[in-house]
Amino acid sequence: MSPEETFVATALHAWNQNIDRANKVFSDLSDDDLQKAIAPGRNRLAYLMGHLVVVHDAMLPLLDLGPRLHPELDGAFLTNADDPAVAMPGADELRRLWNEVHERLRVGFAGFSAADWLSRHTAVSVDDFAKNPLRNRLAVLLSRTSHIGYHVGQAALVAK
Amino acid sequence: MSPEETFVATALHAWNQNIDRANKVFSDLSDDDLQKAIAPGRNRLAYLMGHLVVVHDAMLPLLDLGPRLHPELDGAFLTNADDPAVAMPGADELRRLWNEVHERLRVGFAGFSAADWLSRHTAVSVDDFAKNPLRNRLAVLLSRTSHIGYHVGQAALVAK
Repeated sequence: MSPEETFVATALHAWNQNIDRANKVFSDLSDDDLQKAIAPGRNRLAYLMGHLVVVHDAMLPLLDLGPRLHPELDGAFLTNADDPAVAMPGADELRRLWNEVHERLRVGFAGFSAADWLSRHTAVSVDDFAKNPLRNRLAVLLSRTSHIGYHVGQAALVAK
Repeated sequence: MSPEETFVATALHAWNQNIDRANKVFSDLSDDDLQKAIAPGRNRLAYLMGHLVVVHDAMLPLLDLGPRLHPELDGAFLTNADDPAVAMPGADELRRLWNEVHERLRVGFAGFSAADWLSRHTAVSVDDFAKNPLRNRLAVLLSRTSHIGYHVGQAALVAK
């Protein structure tokens, strides 16, 4: 591996580690488990799982990998706080969405060269990117990697 | 910047962003605030703050930047779970430790070239590193970056 390839592989490994951690937390949960809140009055596990699906789905256009797969989920999991009065998709449906989005990202990431990772993400203009080359796709990946950790840390508070 | 330098700068930016987030959560807390638990029966904020200090202090030998500054804190913040019966250092002392460790890391990181970041960390043997070059210093940085997110996500649950 060239140094650049090693940088990319190390960053993808960190992403995959956090996805694996999230899988451990979320993938075996029942419908009932997913209704549990991380703390009194706080988000339900189903909300966190759906929120990660939505945020990761939005990485597709941000990384120029194509359109969102499920923009219809934004209302339930992104633009509104968790509302216990609102029904969530069930465990099977959340798992299906989870797997679909992460499989699409996996395929997209596999097609990126090191130079692609250092390219502009789509939320920054050509001019702004010229001023700040750190606003690249890798920065999006690293930011989302930490974001998984943020919510996995919260989900871990739910007693088994 | 060369591509390799851009990779490093992007990763350091992600680390610094998470340190800044942690600073926002922890740096203005009073002694009383730090006694608040993130959820009933869970870690106090002082424990999380001290835990991040200890884990980051341990990055010094792991990245070959010198010995630990404060191994004496392990008992309170790493090897044992938070025990409400155990007194914590006060806010001023935690802040002093926090700043000391992060300043030392900042200086150490500034001295690393891109090749240094792709070098072996000290917890992996020369042989194992030859088999898996992803066990490098950058991997430690990215892992600890997510780890900050993990606990900041928990600390964010404490009502202001």
